[in-house]
Amino acid sequence: MSQFINKKENIVTEAVDGLIRASGGQLARLDGYPHIRVVVRADWDKSKVALVSGGGSGHEPAHAGFVGKGMLTAAVCGDVFASPSVDAVLAGILAVTGPAGCLLIVKNYTGDRLNFGLAAERARAAGYKVSMVVVDDDIALPDLPQARGVAGTLFVYKIAGALAEQGADLDTLTKAAERVVRDTQSIGMSLDTCTVPGSPRQQRIPPGIAELGLGIHGEPGVEQVAYNGAKNAIEAVAAKLATVMDKKTHVVLLNNLGGASTLEMSVLANELLVSSIADNLKLIIGPAPMMTSLDMRGFSVSVYAVNNEDEALLGAPCAPSAWPGCKAVNSVIIKELPDGLTPVKLVPSWHEPTANFITRWCQVLIDSEADLNALDAKSGDGDTGATLAGAAKALISALDRMPLSDPTQLYRAIGQELSQTMGGSCGVLLSIFFTATADAASSGLPMVASLKEGLDRMQQIGGAQLGDRSMVDARKGAVHTSTIVKARVGRASYINAEQLQGHIDPGAEAVARLFEDLGDRG
Amino acid sequence: MSQFINKKENIVTEAVDGLIRASGGQLARLDGYPHIRVVVRADWDKSKVALVSGGGSGHEPAHAGFVGKGMLTAAVCGDVFASPSVDAVLAGILAVTGPAGCLLIVKNYTGDRLNFGLAAERARAAGYKVSMVVVDDDIALPDLPQARGVAGTLFVYKIAGALAEQGADLDTLTKAAERVVRDTQSIGMSLDTCTVPGSPRQQRIPPGIAELGLGIHGEPGVEQVAYNGAKNAIEAVAAKLATVMDKKTHVVLLNNLGGASTLEMSVLANELLVSSIADNLKLIIGPAPMMTSLDMRGFSVSVYAVNNEDEALLGAPCAPSAWPGCKAVNSVIIKELPDGLTPVKLVPSWHEPTANFITRWCQVLIDSEADLNALDAKSGDGDTGATLAGAAKALISALDRMPLSDPTQLYRAIGQELSQTMGGSCGVLLSIFFTATADAASSGLPMVASLKEGLDRMQQIGGAQLGDRSMVDARKGAVHTSTIVKARVGRASYINAEQLQGHIDPGAEAVARLFEDLGDRG
Repeated sequence: MSQFINKKENIVTEAVDGLIRASGGQLARLDGYPHIRVVVRADWDKSKVALVSGGGSGHEPAHAGFVGKGMLTAAVCGDVFASPSVDAVLAGILAVTGPAGCLLIVKNYTGDRLNFGLAAERARAAGYKVSMVVVDDDIALPDLPQARGVAGTLFVYKIAGALAEQGADLDTLTKAAERVVRDTQSIGMSLDTCTVPGSPRQQRIPPGIAELGLGIHGEPGVEQVAYNGAKNAIEAVAAKLATVMDKKTHVVLLNNLGGASTLEMSVLANELLVSSIADNLKLIIGPAPMMTSLDMRGFSVSVYAVNNEDEALLGAPCAPSAWPGCKAVNSVIIKELPDGLTPVKLVPSWHEPTANFITRWCQVLIDSEADLNALDAKSGDGDTGATLAGAAKALISALDRMPLSDPTQLYRAIGQELSQTMGGSCGVLLSIFFTATADAASSGLPMVASLKEGLDRMQQIGGAQLGDRSMVDARKGAVHTSTIVKARVGRASYINAEQLQGHIDPGAEAVARLFEDLGDRG
Repeated sequence: MSQFINKKENIVTEAVDGLIRASGGQLARLDGYPHIRVVVRADWDKSKVALVSGGGSGHEPAHAGFVGKGMLTAAVCGDVFASPSVDAVLAGILAVTGPAGCLLIVKNYTGDRLNFGLAAERARAAGYKVSMVVVDDDIALPDLPQARGVAGTLFVYKIAGALAEQGADLDTLTKAAERVVRDTQSIGMSLDTCTVPGSPRQQRIPPGIAELGLGIHGEPGVEQVAYNGAKNAIEAVAAKLATVMDKKTHVVLLNNLGGASTLEMSVLANELLVSSIADNLKLIIGPAPMMTSLDMRGFSVSVYAVNNEDEALLGAPCAPSAWPGCKAVNSVIIKELPDGLTPVKLVPSWHEPTANFITRWCQVLIDSEADLNALDAKSGDGDTGATLAGAAKALISALDRMPLSDPTQLYRAIGQELSQTMGGSCGVLLSIFFTATADAASSGLPMVASLKEGLDRMQQIGGAQLGDRSMVDARKGAVHTSTIVKARVGRASYINAEQLQGHIDPGAEAVARLFEDLGDRG
């Protein structure tokens, strides 16, 4: 499958420029293309501690998407899944660090540790105050002392970012960041691999299998497990997290690894918030793509044991629109259905002439069933006659429940009856016609004007104009429809001119026969 | 490929509940499961005009994700790609409509028009003030009078939502919404189809082909075109939009149809904002998933000719976190690279004993090349000897540029030299060691303490502890490393115990030989 990129070599510079162009002037970059790709806050005045992060690209919106007031000051962007160079990191540090110093937030990968680490040394050698925290929140491999840094990094961005915005000093910030790192755990699951630009997609995960405990670079998960739906997926993840969660209240971050649909993520959120760890979850961030692995159809769950101060920091406003906010977990609030859903019961009344009139019109439709079906078969599925005849029979049998002596209420009653007994668009449209007519009549319009109003409303909602080849065209005679070679509404609009030429529209024919009957009587 | 769902029949109710649970108490739903799935603002008091929208599901975050202060009051959710019933729409209207009335925002599909239309009639019959606008922004089929409603619907949500929040009356709102509908145009492109839950993914679009002019229900695009990268994709879309854009300034909405990665969307944003229509684009919304087609790897571009009032309304704050904000389009702001990236030139000075000492140590490494390579070949790629010998030779040849008579500066100079001449993690780590040692020494620490500080910093960044089987273990003697059967850092950590047992770590051996030499001299 193709991807929306140009040359593979330019993906990161182009994506960074796209981000900046659409940032409303909030973001800028350093002048170091193609090797130095550093996104910085455009409004930064170095008066507070700077927060610098970054790493390989392919995790968007991380990291550059989280640059902005209240989160990162700068993000250093490597190639896809590759650490940025020491020079690039150093450029980022030097560009944003003032007397208050700089906190580096680094995910625990050898390349990032070394390149950010050496850049930090160089910056210190040049007289800058720099500290560094290494995020290692992944619990997929509990025995590995070098756990990977994954989506839990976002907790550090937000909490340290809000603290920095409040003017906290570097020491306070570093200690807070270290505390967040220590108390954050994450684990991911995926149903598919990702498409690394320029490489064919690996077909590693067969249908019916999920990978549990995977990182954010397309590497295989720690184990392949049977996949049995969203509920079991969340429970597998929750079981891993439960082993490291104590009793305290947690904030949970539900991250889309890139390729799960928003619909799926909401299903996962629902399962997460009723899962075996749900009682320990007080706040939620997401579901949203935050730390992705390109287009991987997967998710990760990160938990962090919050205190009151953390809650305020997580909830503090911040500029990056990629941050989905941190919200209180709540149960489903259910409101009662409103009154008025059941149509008002209309009081039956008998009026012989009206009953006869309706019966006769209905009989016209019943008698026309075969003819109308045949006409419909020329441009549709041949059921117009059956549909109308069925509704006509139902209407006849409902006459003794109808307010026949009150014309306005009668239109309303017919509208209700048709919406219940007549399928398809036609039933809804005729129901709209009769209901709107009743509406107009009850507002005092004379009957012909009310019928005109009903027709207008039906046309407005159905979208049919005169000449569009529909039942509306009976006003000019059904035969005329056979010369309209382009249907503009309804199913016949998908049929080409040759197939329609010479055929009468069955809806128009039906209405025409009713008017013809009216003429015979008149 | 599997999907993160449970039973297909429950997707929408579960997703709605997930959305509500994670909404921080902002959202509620009506008590009508499974047939009536209506999401409403939890805080709604009916004091203003209500905005009700909805339609088939599968377009998340539309529609329920845009319920909240400043946007929709309620969203009526049908099954995936299927219109909700008349009863469900009516329940939504009745639940939120007060004396100020209700504006229905409907996308132009027959089912939605009819079901929302009839529900509106019923609500009117029950005495409610209801108006309805039908969004038909798709320009893929210019001759079709019934153009589809796609992502341009978001303009209506936001502008009408902000106006309603300000207290505008129903007539004003309806007119504003009609104006937005009239002046909005959209078109989409995709590289793949979508996965409808419960159905296998259609393989309709071959690699190298894109579909232009597609809707949001997985239906084929109007034309299949050759796909030649992001720039051409945007130009194809821009060319279609250019035909309907006049000279005025526009807001553009860049919508992810669900399956494009965030990285790709930024590349597309960059192309869009330098495209042939870029001069007419003043504001941008996105890129973000707003009106998706499940997991379709595609995008759509919507444009609307804004006036000043619209700009304020689009920029007004609103509650739904799915709204990515509306930002001014700007060119890429580029800041100068900071000073200090080029290491400070150190003043050379000659000191014979130091030069001899360094030369002799370097010679130890040069002489050990073959032995260290052989050791490395047991657990690595056999180049440790070559790497160290190469760096040693470079160091010897750099001696006349070094500040040999100033120990502190000398450490710094060696750190710089190694980071430039020595590849791999080892070069970075040793550079960190020497740079941090210099840093400590310049702060006044005695030399041994400074060296200890350098070692600590190297360990901290490299993550190696004593006993992890690395060059750090030379403190206990390289031979000891042959008994450490589990490497915990470096490439050898991927090797199993049996393969390491009895082999000395080459890094440790190198450092041990240097200390041995020191011992010989001392």
